[in-house]
Amino acid sequence: LHVAASRSPSGTLSSVLSMHMEYKKRIFTPGPTEVPSQVLQSLARPLVHHRTGFFREMHLSIANGLKYVFRTENPIVIWTSSGTGAMEAAMANVTLPGDKILTTPCGKFGERWCELASTYGLQVLRAEAEWGRVVTPGQVEDALKNDSGVSVVFTTLCETSTGVCQDVKEIARIAHKYGALVVVDAIAGLCSEELDTDAWGLDVVLGGSQKGFGTPPGLSFLSLSRDAIARIRTKGHPVYYFDLVKALDSLEKGDTPYTPAIALFVGLGEALKIIREMGIENTIERHRRNAQAVRSAVAALDLKLFAEVPSNATTAVIPPEGSASAIIDLMDKRYGIRIAGGQGKLAGHILRLGHLGFYNESDMYTMIAALEATLLDLKLNPSPGKGIKSLLESFHKDGPIDV
Amino acid sequence: LHVAASRSPSGTLSSVLSMHMEYKKRIFTPGPTEVPSQVLQSLARPLVHHRTGFFREMHLSIANGLKYVFRTENPIVIWTSSGTGAMEAAMANVTLPGDKILTTPCGKFGERWCELASTYGLQVLRAEAEWGRVVTPGQVEDALKNDSGVSVVFTTLCETSTGVCQDVKEIARIAHKYGALVVVDAIAGLCSEELDTDAWGLDVVLGGSQKGFGTPPGLSFLSLSRDAIARIRTKGHPVYYFDLVKALDSLEKGDTPYTPAIALFVGLGEALKIIREMGIENTIERHRRNAQAVRSAVAALDLKLFAEVPSNATTAVIPPEGSASAIIDLMDKRYGIRIAGGQGKLAGHILRLGHLGFYNESDMYTMIAALEATLLDLKLNPSPGKGIKSLLESFHKDGPIDV
Repeated sequence: LHVAASRSPSGTLSSVLSMHMEYKKRIFTPGPTEVPSQVLQSLARPLVHHRTGFFREMHLSIANGLKYVFRTENPIVIWTSSGTGAMEAAMANVTLPGDKILTTPCGKFGERWCELASTYGLQVLRAEAEWGRVVTPGQVEDALKNDSGVSVVFTTLCETSTGVCQDVKEIARIAHKYGALVVVDAIAGLCSEELDTDAWGLDVVLGGSQKGFGTPPGLSFLSLSRDAIARIRTKGHPVYYFDLVKALDSLEKGDTPYTPAIALFVGLGEALKIIREMGIENTIERHRRNAQAVRSAVAALDLKLFAEVPSNATTAVIPPEGSASAIIDLMDKRYGIRIAGGQGKLAGHILRLGHLGFYNESDMYTMIAALEATLLDLKLNPSPGKGIKSLLESFHKDGPIDV
Repeated sequence: LHVAASRSPSGTLSSVLSMHMEYKKRIFTPGPTEVPSQVLQSLARPLVHHRTGFFREMHLSIANGLKYVFRTENPIVIWTSSGTGAMEAAMANVTLPGDKILTTPCGKFGERWCELASTYGLQVLRAEAEWGRVVTPGQVEDALKNDSGVSVVFTTLCETSTGVCQDVKEIARIAHKYGALVVVDAIAGLCSEELDTDAWGLDVVLGGSQKGFGTPPGLSFLSLSRDAIARIRTKGHPVYYFDLVKALDSLEKGDTPYTPAIALFVGLGEALKIIREMGIENTIERHRRNAQAVRSAVAALDLKLFAEVPSNATTAVIPPEGSASAIIDLMDKRYGIRIAGGQGKLAGHILRLGHLGFYNESDMYTMIAALEATLLDLKLNPSPGKGIKSLLESFHKDGPIDV
């Protein structure tokens, strides 16, 4: 004990142990998500230079892999940035100063579209809903009917701050009916929800490496329809790093305008190979089953679901009043299972159980067992085992995924 | 032969072999630079979540390591972006619409400051020099004397497109004399050149992970003086992802406003540990010696130096007319040694030999031997061995670095 403690100039033995065990912890948040071992290992390959045929071929192969997931023939630009960077790229390139745009805020990420639009001085209409509910296509139609001249509708497929999934297909249909382009934040929705960029006519779709793609954060993606491409060629706002015209021109040759996060490209390439092998339909089905099983477990544990229309990416749960932080902390410290809490005004009020990414049934047992154990520790689990029993039944009913 | 070739649906045997050997190739470019093995291995650790004490502690420790390299007590913000992102962050946050600024272009990266300033609609003064030469402090003083009201001077320490190093210390002194802030692109200069942020009063200094820090690309850095911080609180241009106020506020708690490239933070932490152990003075001295030895080898091979004031980061060389591309290609294909060519109007006219990053004397022998061999193959090396002999003498005269 003395020896171990003396190794740490600052901490106690328990803090030393917990630091060393950090890499043992499991992540069950809506992002970042766990990275499969073969992806992690690929990050450690010697760095290759990006102005080479090798990198360009890899880049184009990754762009094709993304097209498979997005279900599109549209070009897909990859940014070295978080998903927010891709959101700003969409806002700054697809709108012109003074444009009137429509947003569909019902959580933190929908509000981010509004903040971005304000930053760029746009007129912002809001078809909004309380956090936890979804914005209906009817609301979008009313907004577009009452206020003409909306150039772009900015919406969100999975609003991970509240756990809902919105009807982006129908919202896009209505937007087009009124002559507006539609930009979809599908950062948490890609791989986990049905999404058909081309069949639904989505003009811009956004994704991020650290979500369903099981790659570390640092890359974001953006697909562009022909109409969106026509729009971005008129420059209105100042853009440089996020200049979509430069990015598209570079992409044709497999290049990026500036030095890309090469190691993360290598990792993403490996992750896309797995998704291709698994198939995108099976990937979405796996997410649907995990989400359904987790919801049944949560209900069996007498916890309330927060989301009106729950997504396959994350399950938002209302725990007994005042217990959220204690549950999250104890799951982390005692069981090494990291779930997420609420964001913004939901901080301290909800739990968010992540099942977005490369998670299988065993992972769901691990997470729900830790939740059950934590609730038991906190005297909030009157009949231990009910959650796991419900998971068992849900997965058993579904049978194995045909992969 | 038949079996190997049949494995590749598209390529010949030689293309298959060269693809498989890509990870064996050595990088001697001004960036990205080679990544030490312990940094590469750290990238493959299981992903940790960023909203945790573990990440915040790592982030603050990295920020401290960067302060040691920058020689500053100023806060240092880390962006998930290439160095160009940090350049845009500086331009967009430190200037106001309509500002008059001074640039010192003498190559591609100096021109980038001008392009950024135009993007943001600023009045751009230029104290410029031909590519290959440096902008003198006298030119900067003349420009500031003749045209009052310049708010910020944007300059470049190492202009890697031409291989020169500028007198940023003196440029900063003059800028301050005329009441202007000074922003220094030290992306290629950090770790390789003398730079003292606080003693020289540099208001904003920029760095990038893939340069002297030997970490894969994807992170950029930006230090802010008190005067710069006062300036950024007045918002003029639209900024969201690169909002420095938000980034500074988050940094106090060890946070980033948006999901950071976590795996690259882990790698950067390992790289900074090595730099600390080696010492920043020794690190710069190692770069000085490598650069000096490479210049002597280049002269011995009867190649001309391109840079008026050569930097420690890269040696720009004028090869015999019309031979640049052939030299670069053959060094890459036959010897697996990747150097860089010219950029912009220098494409096809110069070679750039990189010695920025974690390179030792053995690495310089490797690079110069490949250069000699390539020149021999191309019948451009009349007395083989002179380059290596010159390297031997240069390093021998210096003796071992006292580490």
